[in-house]
Amino acid sequence: MELPESLLNVIDQLSKIPGVGDKTATRQTLILAKWSADDLNAFGDAMKNLANLKACVDCGMYSDLDYCEICSNSERKESKSVCVVENVTDCLAIERSGNYEGLYHILGGVLNPLMGVGPDELKIDSFVKRVRGLEVKNVILAVNPSVEGDATCSYIKQVLPSDVEVDRIGFGIPMGGSLEYLDTMTIAKALENKKKM
Amino acid sequence: MELPESLLNVIDQLSKIPGVGDKTATRQTLILAKWSADDLNAFGDAMKNLANLKACVDCGMYSDLDYCEICSNSERKESKSVCVVENVTDCLAIERSGNYEGLYHILGGVLNPLMGVGPDELKIDSFVKRVRGLEVKNVILAVNPSVEGDATCSYIKQVLPSDVEVDRIGFGIPMGGSLEYLDTMTIAKALENKKKM
Repeated sequence: MELPESLLNVIDQLSKIPGVGDKTATRQTLILAKWSADDLNAFGDAMKNLANLKACVDCGMYSDLDYCEICSNSERKESKSVCVVENVTDCLAIERSGNYEGLYHILGGVLNPLMGVGPDELKIDSFVKRVRGLEVKNVILAVNPSVEGDATCSYIKQVLPSDVEVDRIGFGIPMGGSLEYLDTMTIAKALENKKKM
Repeated sequence: MELPESLLNVIDQLSKIPGVGDKTATRQTLILAKWSADDLNAFGDAMKNLANLKACVDCGMYSDLDYCEICSNSERKESKSVCVVENVTDCLAIERSGNYEGLYHILGGVLNPLMGVGPDELKIDSFVKRVRGLEVKNVILAVNPSVEGDATCSYIKQVLPSDVEVDRIGFGIPMGGSLEYLDTMTIAKALENKKKM
């Protein structure tokens, strides 16, 4: 027996979300089928409205307006500090930690010549212009450690004005981590980054 | 920092689905934000269209039309057999097993006087009329075992014409089950339902 078209459509759409399999999608759809027409319309509208989501002209963060909440915040602008991250989720992770009060710049990836990702794709030119325009004093490169990430950091340091202080986020043992189970690279980095107590 | 309204709306809607928490909803929404406007519109339309889902006039199964695929199938009607289940998912489970070729009747619950669910709420009257109209010979009660389920089965048997053969689905050890870990009630039922080899 085939399920009705309207159910199959929703199952199909839900199972396109990574991590949602056919079984989960079916179970969720049968629950959704009990929702009122109003609730389903609200859900559908929210989904359609997501297409109107814009990226902040300055930093690349998702925003309903041309400029995101952080770039519109004059206090954060005054900090003269920009944190460079690979993507939106990295930016949200740093915001969650609550330890950073400056601006962000979202690269949207890392340099990867083999995959055709060059400085133009990451809009590094506009970033350099932005650093100059805002008279930024401090750039923190919060790019994940990987061959491509390291290359991206070196490249950005090279193209930034020489009077800008460029730091890379610290590597070492994560909180709650255990030396016994950590890889050798992390331990090597942690020893390199030792700090006077 | 607050996420843009359009993202928050989708997170809010997704996290209304049972089993989807705030974190999962956020992760899924950030993935959805990368979808094209066309894909998001298709998702939204599928969701809104779900409000048009009807229940089959005869059996109560979800259907896009007035009568579901099973009730419109003349071969299944000819079987003169109706399987009574609590809800749509139970019907789908039996269909998946591929071992039943007759019609269904979906109660939408079980008798539960304390919760205000009486014979009228389960449309048992219309079921009896349907059994008479179709000249059904065999009713299989595939209602889950519970106090309310047992009461519902007794009630249905009582109100059906006496010439209709009424069976209840068999209880016992599930395939792959292990006596060691099964509850005493199941083992008692399994002994009661022993069968000549």
